[in-house]
Amino acid sequence: MYSQSQLAELIQQGLDQLQYPTLAPALYDPVRYTMESGGKRLRPTLVLMATNLFKEDISNALRPALGVEMYHNFTLLHDDVMDKAPNRRGRPTVHVKWDDNTAILSGDAMHALASQLVAEAPAYCLRDVINTFNTTDTEICEGQQLDLEFETRENVTVEEYIEMIRLKTSVLLGCALRIGALIGQASAEQVQALYDFGINLGLAFQLQDDWLDCWGDPKTFGKRIGGDILCEKKTFLRIKAEMKYPRPMLSKSDEQMYIDTYKHYYLQTGAEHACRIAIADYAHKAKEALERLNLPADKLEGLISLTDKLENRNV
Amino acid sequence: MYSQSQLAELIQQGLDQLQYPTLAPALYDPVRYTMESGGKRLRPTLVLMATNLFKEDISNALRPALGVEMYHNFTLLHDDVMDKAPNRRGRPTVHVKWDDNTAILSGDAMHALASQLVAEAPAYCLRDVINTFNTTDTEICEGQQLDLEFETRENVTVEEYIEMIRLKTSVLLGCALRIGALIGQASAEQVQALYDFGINLGLAFQLQDDWLDCWGDPKTFGKRIGGDILCEKKTFLRIKAEMKYPRPMLSKSDEQMYIDTYKHYYLQTGAEHACRIAIADYAHKAKEALERLNLPADKLEGLISLTDKLENRNV
Repeated sequence: MYSQSQLAELIQQGLDQLQYPTLAPALYDPVRYTMESGGKRLRPTLVLMATNLFKEDISNALRPALGVEMYHNFTLLHDDVMDKAPNRRGRPTVHVKWDDNTAILSGDAMHALASQLVAEAPAYCLRDVINTFNTTDTEICEGQQLDLEFETRENVTVEEYIEMIRLKTSVLLGCALRIGALIGQASAEQVQALYDFGINLGLAFQLQDDWLDCWGDPKTFGKRIGGDILCEKKTFLRIKAEMKYPRPMLSKSDEQMYIDTYKHYYLQTGAEHACRIAIADYAHKAKEALERLNLPADKLEGLISLTDKLENRNV
Repeated sequence: MYSQSQLAELIQQGLDQLQYPTLAPALYDPVRYTMESGGKRLRPTLVLMATNLFKEDISNALRPALGVEMYHNFTLLHDDVMDKAPNRRGRPTVHVKWDDNTAILSGDAMHALASQLVAEAPAYCLRDVINTFNTTDTEICEGQQLDLEFETRENVTVEEYIEMIRLKTSVLLGCALRIGALIGQASAEQVQALYDFGINLGLAFQLQDDWLDCWGDPKTFGKRIGGDILCEKKTFLRIKAEMKYPRPMLSKSDEQMYIDTYKHYYLQTGAEHACRIAIADYAHKAKEALERLNLPADKLEGLISLTDKLENRNV
């Protein structure tokens, strides 16, 4: 089996070797800029790890894995336009460095390139892979739609919030694992178990992101601590806290005080505790799904340690 | 063989029966609005006509045909955001009726739905159909990129303009015909001949659009006559005219006078004549490509009369 660092190297090599069409070169400058800006490469890693559970040779999973990473970066690009986000991974976003039109159009081009890469899946699983990818594509749009709607809605329940992050984040992790499993010619039960693993991993991952927004290490988190609080985002923490006690009403003139007050509010209402519990719970469910794979324990070590790492990450 | 009106009915029924996901209903309101706003349904008609050249039963081409139409409408939706177009088919555009974010996101959802429909192609041609669709998807982004670049470029040659409209318009007609031919299990030569027919038909179609912008019937054209002139779009007419004689410099304070002066300039420089010649030339090349199909003449009547109709249309 491949180690994490070997997979990381394969993915980086694959990304470096991507050829972009040459008819309208300026279209691909923002695509290169986005793809070169790093990130955890979690999704292509999941594709390759899933294939590698069932096959030694994972070469025919590489291009679909890059497609999933390209697709993920497309969603970030369009989300950043919609959210008017100034920075991503420590650099100006495409719509800031270029303009909105460039971000819309080069995002569309990334969508097209992603589909091309995913469609390089082998014949024996092509239709399943494509269907998984296309269904996920629709669901992610639905997740982003709900996220935008929640901004202006007064009440959002925990269940609605979980459904939104399932659609916006989890399904793409599930999709990556499902595609990898299909290329690995896993059984239908194994494909489903890996998908369920991805869904629960994604929920833990996103809730951890909410938590890190408050208690992450500012040196490693990459975003400003308290960003969600300042923009009044309806996160798990806020929804849980408001169920206990009305939220503090105070001016944002002193931003640090505003953030500190809300962090205190999340701690006092037990929302922080509930968030940690929910993260551990989804991480546990993810590992339970792995047991359904019926594979020797040593095969699962990679996915288990990845789950532990994500659960305890501070970046 | 199906008549044009039978095909139109099939397509309309298919569109009426499309089911949209229900998780985030507001995401699909602009999709329905766009798909209900009509249009010529040229692209799905071409898919079905191409299949029908080789098969009596065209039922397995219907969903991919609807996918191509859905895709076309996605490109219009995003183009309208980028061009800040206020109207489309006589109704407010999505970004005007809703907002930019809605237009970006519901466009992305249409892209995903289009891919799903196209991926319903039969197994014997699935990979070819998907590859055709994805390659076209990239090319259309490139065409839109060139179109945007030309807005701020001083000099655009006729060759560059033709290449831009090939990418922006023709390749999707070629794609529609190619997908139809693949589903019809045509030979490789026949698939290529139909693609070439589509490319030339598309060039004739787009040049006719440029011409109609000046000399179309305001009652039937749907857009304001002289729109391209007012926004100083580098059309075939303008590029050709400027090769002969520098363009008139005058104020736009009297818009009608401005438009009339340019129409006169296009006539005097022979640009109008060159445009009509080019339209007839591409329409002729399109019909020549049909001859390479090696099919009985009566089979080709539909595509030939369609070409004649598009060449002489005033809408």
